[in-house]
Amino acid sequence: MGEVLMRLVTYDDGRVGYVTGDRVVDLGGLLVGGYTVPGTKSAMRRLLERWDQVRKALPAPAPTNSVPLASVRLGPPVPDPTKIVAAPVNYRDHRSEMAMTVDISDLAVFLKAPSSLLPHGGVVRLPYSDRRVDQEGELAAVIGRRAHRVSEADALGHVAGYTACLDITMRGGEDRSTRKSFDTFTPLGPWLVTADEAGPCDDVDLECVVNGEIRQKTNTRSLIWGVAKLVSYVSSVMTLEVGDVIATGTPAGVGPIAAGDEITVTLSRIGTLAVTVASDERGPSPTGTRRR
Amino acid sequence: MGEVLMRLVTYDDGRVGYVTGDRVVDLGGLLVGGYTVPGTKSAMRRLLERWDQVRKALPAPAPTNSVPLASVRLGPPVPDPTKIVAAPVNYRDHRSEMAMTVDISDLAVFLKAPSSLLPHGGVVRLPYSDRRVDQEGELAAVIGRRAHRVSEADALGHVAGYTACLDITMRGGEDRSTRKSFDTFTPLGPWLVTADEAGPCDDVDLECVVNGEIRQKTNTRSLIWGVAKLVSYVSSVMTLEVGDVIATGTPAGVGPIAAGDEITVTLSRIGTLAVTVASDERGPSPTGTRRR
Repeated sequence: MGEVLMRLVTYDDGRVGYVTGDRVVDLGGLLVGGYTVPGTKSAMRRLLERWDQVRKALPAPAPTNSVPLASVRLGPPVPDPTKIVAAPVNYRDHRSEMAMTVDISDLAVFLKAPSSLLPHGGVVRLPYSDRRVDQEGELAAVIGRRAHRVSEADALGHVAGYTACLDITMRGGEDRSTRKSFDTFTPLGPWLVTADEAGPCDDVDLECVVNGEIRQKTNTRSLIWGVAKLVSYVSSVMTLEVGDVIATGTPAGVGPIAAGDEITVTLSRIGTLAVTVASDERGPSPTGTRRR
Repeated sequence: MGEVLMRLVTYDDGRVGYVTGDRVVDLGGLLVGGYTVPGTKSAMRRLLERWDQVRKALPAPAPTNSVPLASVRLGPPVPDPTKIVAAPVNYRDHRSEMAMTVDISDLAVFLKAPSSLLPHGGVVRLPYSDRRVDQEGELAAVIGRRAHRVSEADALGHVAGYTACLDITMRGGEDRSTRKSFDTFTPLGPWLVTADEAGPCDDVDLECVVNGEIRQKTNTRSLIWGVAKLVSYVSSVMTLEVGDVIATGTPAGVGPIAAGDEITVTLSRIGTLAVTVASDERGPSPTGTRRR
């Protein structure tokens, strides 16, 4: 991962910056009103809304405007997307392992709650004692320009950049939105790599590792609906706002996770998202008993 | 509907007020920073966050602070909830008409995109030429205090108030989030009646009328999961934020709607939400062909 990449981070109490070498350069000075405006959208959403101007005015790192990356607490790159859209069955090998006869062209997309976001380094909390929960490593796109019924040809022009994502999923008969929206079930990060520097989004290597064992390995060229088609389609259903997250789907290799596990998702040219797993120890699930 | 009710509205370009008689009294003066803070949450979310203080300081209507209700353009009471949570099968008679063997205790809840909100008086737009779209009239609760794993006994203390909702739904095999999240598919309003003045939420008469014909008629005492249980359960999955909307589910009587239709949902003590229907004339749906 070279210095060339523009890696944008949300850190500490909602600050925004970019990572260069082992330092984070603060970008709060480029926000209208700085960090002081109460009750606003996140600094990252405000930054992305002005990115075309901001990117020309990026400050160089100096001791006065930067801190060691190791000293900051990262947040999800966008802590408050108006929506998280996700693709249910968007790799053929995952369709096979799930024994499904349908894919994204039948199922379209589902929504995850923004309250399920978790930063790099966070802890996924398993809610129940009697339910299987799986890891699903994914490439996520972040919207940079409002998109309403945009064509496939124009779609990538509405993407600000890319980050790694885990679509943590409880198996069972509940609606996907429930099974995938428990608090902590959407790790996202560690940073947002801007689209112009992330390389082609349809040629990203993805590797998801649990406790040192490779569970998932693919390249985004195997997506059934690539990023452009996915963004175009989603924008034909629901207007996409700056900062909205689109998780593009997971390949074969999903599997159960348990307390103590360490999970990483590595995307070529983008970075590695790492989280751990713990149990909430609440006892059995109150839903889904009829189906089991 | 007596004067006693506190009916909160979002109107014109994001103003907040309360309705008394045939006038809207502006409440912008009670917001920290007024309406001038850029990039913030909606005025309604900021108002609800401070409601305990604000309600004691409500201005009386005067010519200088109020305008005729008939002269304003209503918005959805909350234009920017961080999520819209909805109940899939929460009345037994609707389970029967859908020939389903499962209900909310199996399916739990799904999410609708906030971008699908439509105000009272708005136009529902049907996207495709070849798909059935139904009306589903509902009672919606709006969260007034953050809720994380709250008990059923405490749940109603986290509800700011109630409003009417239509969960417009495309039938078919796509994920519920897609079928229910097209832009304009969540009419909400006309106003938010505060919980202390809306009367018992488990005894609300609901009537949904299409072109003058009653299609749905129930009372919320017939809900499988009442509002308290629903809010408690949802808060055990995903943390609820101030302004979040929970659509409680629809009774029997859902049916297809078409361009030119007029739909109303009337809730006792709360009010009547009215919308019309038009077609987007896009041609056939790009998804779901395998299942049909």
